[in-house]
Amino acid sequence: MTRIEDVHARLFHVPLDRVLVDARHGDHTYFELVTCTIRLSDGSEGTGYTYTGGKGGHAILAALRHDLSPFLLGRDGADVEGLFDAMLWHVHYVGRGGIMSFAISAVDIALWDARGQRRGRSLRAMAGGAAADCRAYCGGIDLGFDRDELLDSVRGYVAAGAGGVKIKVGRPDLSDDAARVAAVRDLIGPDLPFMVDANYAFDVPRAIEAARAFAPARPTWFEEPIIPDDYDGYAAVALATGMPLAMGENLHVLEEFDHAFARATLSFVQPDGSNCGGITGFLRVAERARRHGVTLCSHGMQELHVSLIAGLPGDGWIEVHSFPIDRYTTRPLAMADGRARAPDAPGTGVTFDWDRLAEADLLRGAMAPARSTA
Amino acid sequence: MTRIEDVHARLFHVPLDRVLVDARHGDHTYFELVTCTIRLSDGSEGTGYTYTGGKGGHAILAALRHDLSPFLLGRDGADVEGLFDAMLWHVHYVGRGGIMSFAISAVDIALWDARGQRRGRSLRAMAGGAAADCRAYCGGIDLGFDRDELLDSVRGYVAAGAGGVKIKVGRPDLSDDAARVAAVRDLIGPDLPFMVDANYAFDVPRAIEAARAFAPARPTWFEEPIIPDDYDGYAAVALATGMPLAMGENLHVLEEFDHAFARATLSFVQPDGSNCGGITGFLRVAERARRHGVTLCSHGMQELHVSLIAGLPGDGWIEVHSFPIDRYTTRPLAMADGRARAPDAPGTGVTFDWDRLAEADLLRGAMAPARSTA
Repeated sequence: MTRIEDVHARLFHVPLDRVLVDARHGDHTYFELVTCTIRLSDGSEGTGYTYTGGKGGHAILAALRHDLSPFLLGRDGADVEGLFDAMLWHVHYVGRGGIMSFAISAVDIALWDARGQRRGRSLRAMAGGAAADCRAYCGGIDLGFDRDELLDSVRGYVAAGAGGVKIKVGRPDLSDDAARVAAVRDLIGPDLPFMVDANYAFDVPRAIEAARAFAPARPTWFEEPIIPDDYDGYAAVALATGMPLAMGENLHVLEEFDHAFARATLSFVQPDGSNCGGITGFLRVAERARRHGVTLCSHGMQELHVSLIAGLPGDGWIEVHSFPIDRYTTRPLAMADGRARAPDAPGTGVTFDWDRLAEADLLRGAMAPARSTA
Repeated sequence: MTRIEDVHARLFHVPLDRVLVDARHGDHTYFELVTCTIRLSDGSEGTGYTYTGGKGGHAILAALRHDLSPFLLGRDGADVEGLFDAMLWHVHYVGRGGIMSFAISAVDIALWDARGQRRGRSLRAMAGGAAADCRAYCGGIDLGFDRDELLDSVRGYVAAGAGGVKIKVGRPDLSDDAARVAAVRDLIGPDLPFMVDANYAFDVPRAIEAARAFAPARPTWFEEPIIPDDYDGYAAVALATGMPLAMGENLHVLEEFDHAFARATLSFVQPDGSNCGGITGFLRVAERARRHGVTLCSHGMQELHVSLIAGLPGDGWIEVHSFPIDRYTTRPLAMADGRARAPDAPGTGVTFDWDRLAEADLLRGAMAPARSTA
């Protein structure tokens, strides 16, 4: 048995270069990174993590330290899938989504990282090794940008080698959204894939109106037009407009994905391993997506998802998110000609630069990185 | 404007008299109580709270201190419903159920308590004042009791004046469950209402089998036969057996209740104000229950729910839970002849005995009750 001997959780507040705004989540001035490093009795070690837009980090840290760490210590860390199920049951009454999904995700990713270290295998290989790279598009939290800033930002994506671009929609005036969408399509030419993301700014009738207004720009997908909980509403928008729909970043437990696959008429699903149960959760969603014929993509956390979308069969997209995580890892995302290359190193291939993280941490020691061994 | 001037959150680990076991949540040796006291600029003050079976309390406390308290300070505390919606959006990305629902519930109850203090009105009156009392049944976490202990426990409920009794089912052997159910019906006679609660120990086929095995004892309802997320599965059990079904303690956001009302064929719904958004969340569920013709009941927190179920129209039941909360408040539940009487004091009518709580607190100062003013 590969016993779990230590669980070490840390919270960082990492600054953003500028205030970022979307339709629903207000101003972002920093993002929260919660890391979880697990040491096993055979000497192997893995680091997992999750992140938020600025709220919930302290609660995730508390869940890791007080609820999951005492539960994990002494258990068999090689039984990653068994521990995943056991953690879900352990915190079921206060879980089933929300904060506990983020905390469980960080643990699961750490256990997969350690598994890769032990086996000398990359996450891409463990996921199936289907390809060495995958399609990658860039998107930002750009709803607050004026038109010039927006177009500059999109030019930056193209210059960086993005295979597609995504912008936020959901401004108070729909004609404003439509004009921005048209301007981006003009800028990038007729062929580059282009997505729009409303962060559920609309209700069903308005989402239908918006889909029709955006249609001339031929979006690859319309992401989260309405609240993620309204599965039937998604189907209504898809049926009325024929617009391909995408969502997934706000689905945290498999039962939510099951409802979405059964009812929402999605064309693309975008799980986020940082909040849907880590790699174990992501792989279970991937299997369901395959069965339902929905294209598997990902939300955020590109530095890790690149290994999953490349390694799994299919031709999905990773989102390259604007949180500057690349500054705090030892391997910035390798993107060229519209595709991102997965790392070959054993484990997740995501290694944090702890010194740089400590320097940038806005909490500045307010949350001392005490070891959480029970 | 009645400005929020202070938000003070505290966590207590309150011991249980004995280890309690149900089908899914393992051993309970203490329960967690998280309180939230809010002081407003007009001098009014209210205390809300939530509780757990032993996990998640530290995360709820962290959410209150780091995410909700900074958001609330300075806002208009009289706009209870507006703040409820605003809190949901504030933590949306890490919310939509789970820990954040518990934290928001504690805040909302505190704001209602303060509203009652300001208006000199009881919660029962504010909920509509339909009746002075309501039906009350007793239930315990008794799956681990042997048959004699179980029957003793049920005798205790009857002696205490319960209008009905509930036991846990979900033991490994269904015939064991069926024998316990039959023995309880024998003990209490043919007329006393009798409920069974599986804490989702079953899948759909086994739940159908169980419903048929319990039918001779004529349960008033079969509670949580399967996982709360499987709305269509509930409908399948109801359709196959005609057994009245109940659930609600694991539904935390209104969208979950909407799915349940639309699909699950419930006869009874059992929201818990400590995790479905406090009194505002509970009242919104109540309105939906009325529209759908489902009998409104409640889960746990009898000392508060008695005012809601008595004050609202209908003839639903409060559950009198076995957590010994009565020892730590100034007004033990008043139950007689099968009914519980709502308090008439302004506010929620729930006043904690802070000294007794401090004495019993298993955390013993490990979590110092620092004021969380940002």
